Amino acid sequence: MNLVNGIASDAVSVRDRGLAYGDGVFRTFPMRSSRPVLWQRQYAKLARDCQTLNLNCPALALLDRDMASISAAEPDCVVKIIITRGDGARGYALPAAATPTRVVMTNPLPSHIRHHQETGVRLHLCRIRLAIQPALAGVKHLNRLENVLARAEWSEQEIAEGLMCDTDGNVICGTMSNLFAIKNGTLLTPELTRCGVSGVMRDLVIELAGSHGIPVQTTAIRIDDLLAVDELFVVNSVIGLWPVIALDRKAWNLGTLTAQLQRWISDAQGD
Amino acid sequence: MNLVNGIASDAVSVRDRGLAYGDGVFRTFPMRSSRPVLWQRQYAKLARDCQTLNLNCPALALLDRDMASISAAEPDCVVKIIITRGDGARGYALPAAATPTRVVMTNPLPSHIRHHQETGVRLHLCRIRLAIQPALAGVKHLNRLENVLARAEWSEQEIAEGLMCDTDGNVICGTMSNLFAIKNGTLLTPELTRCGVSGVMRDLVIELAGSHGIPVQTTAIRIDDLLAVDELFVVNSVIGLWPVIALDRKAWNLGTLTAQLQRWISDAQGD
Repeated sequence: MNLVNGIASDAVSVRDRGLAYGDGVFRTFPMRSSRPVLWQRQYAKLARDCQTLNLNCPALALLDRDMASISAAEPDCVVKIIITRGDGARGYALPAAATPTRVVMTNPLPSHIRHHQETGVRLHLCRIRLAIQPALAGVKHLNRLENVLARAEWSEQEIAEGLMCDTDGNVICGTMSNLFAIKNGTLLTPELTRCGVSGVMRDLVIELAGSHGIPVQTTAIRIDDLLAVDELFVVNSVIGLWPVIALDRKAWNLGTLTAQLQRWISDAQGD
Repeated sequence: MNLVNGIASDAVSVRDRGLAYGDGVFRTFPMRSSRPVLWQRQYAKLARDCQTLNLNCPALALLDRDMASISAAEPDCVVKIIITRGDGARGYALPAAATPTRVVMTNPLPSHIRHHQETGVRLHLCRIRLAIQPALAGVKHLNRLENVLARAEWSEQEIAEGLMCDTDGNVICGTMSNLFAIKNGTLLTPELTRCGVSGVMRDLVIELAGSHGIPVQTTAIRIDDLLAVDELFVVNSVIGLWPVIALDRKAWNLGTLTAQLQRWISDAQGD
């Protein structure tokens, strides 16, 4: 199912600035039993990301209506929302009166998610580096060529995700996920002030750890640091939490704190 | 006029990876008297940029046919070509059999171009910096949020272009143009090996200078260097060459070598 500005449609204008420049933002999350999971958080991120781009975020009521249309047709699916700056004349200058384009799409829930949650995943270490751009760091915008090139680096079925570093050599994220490590009982996650996407599940994990008394450090992490951690995992709103069992020649066992966090996430989502 | 895969249409699929990720490339150039200006060069760049993204560039014959359709309807216009990786399932992984989407659009030729060529333009010094990403440097891809944010920094009518530096403080380009300076009779232009777009008009200017015995240096340039040059100008395929007469508090007169290059460009384009 595809909705464009609330109406069933499979097309956007060729003049849309989302296509021309990637001038927009997006979110991806599950709908389960007709309920968009962690929806308030997703909308809050969408609104914040729109604000960073100085883009008028559609009102919650409009997107609530889209969610209702979708949940009736597809109670269990992956929802993707794209908000663009809408149509514009040629040229980078912002249109005087831009009307954002609101696209809502559904996709099937992937079948391998739970398997990876239970058995863990192997990571590929990506050769392409993330460029450092503080003005866009954290934002889930539509300029995602680095992620596309990173994901194209491997095709092995047994590798579920790629690990990305920035051009300064700091570990930042997966191609589609945020990264966490546990070292001596402390939860570590990379700073996202210079690049990377700050996801809803990342925020939730940080909050859950904090509320259960686990120390959390948002910090610079190098590959050598990462190879010395006790537990490692990646998260996003669709996959939940996948333990990492291998990166390069390093291997990890499934960790106890990782498993604990999986249960807390499940509870928080009302699974 | 809008053509999508050779057929008159105003719409692309909501599932197009050009919209989802900016997974594609584009070119913009004038059509004059039914002739796409410097067309062989434009197609060569398109093909090279597609290759960098590992994207199948449509055959020249297909785009030749699009140019013929457009030239018949609009003999004088600005043509924009967008090539995307086409539709894809959700996720960054490349589709197994991607069919590129080919969009060709027309826009009116801007009326102010010649005036700016004759009287010169003022530049705004952009606060946003270009991120350093060697894997995408030079490519005119669809990830252009930095340009959008840069162009949004000023609204004064008397400022025609913005000057962009990279995050290391090197001068790189205008928001929509390449940059040249003349110092002691030598033509200088920024290296584009780490960011920026390598345009057709940039190549032409370098070739024209070389063939007329003017020394050319592609080099790192800092703002302080730029404020000390004898002549300064910006180029792109649509605007041709605009002399720069002011940047910040520095002013320049219209230069003789700049005027010479304008004439050579005009001759090379068969104006």
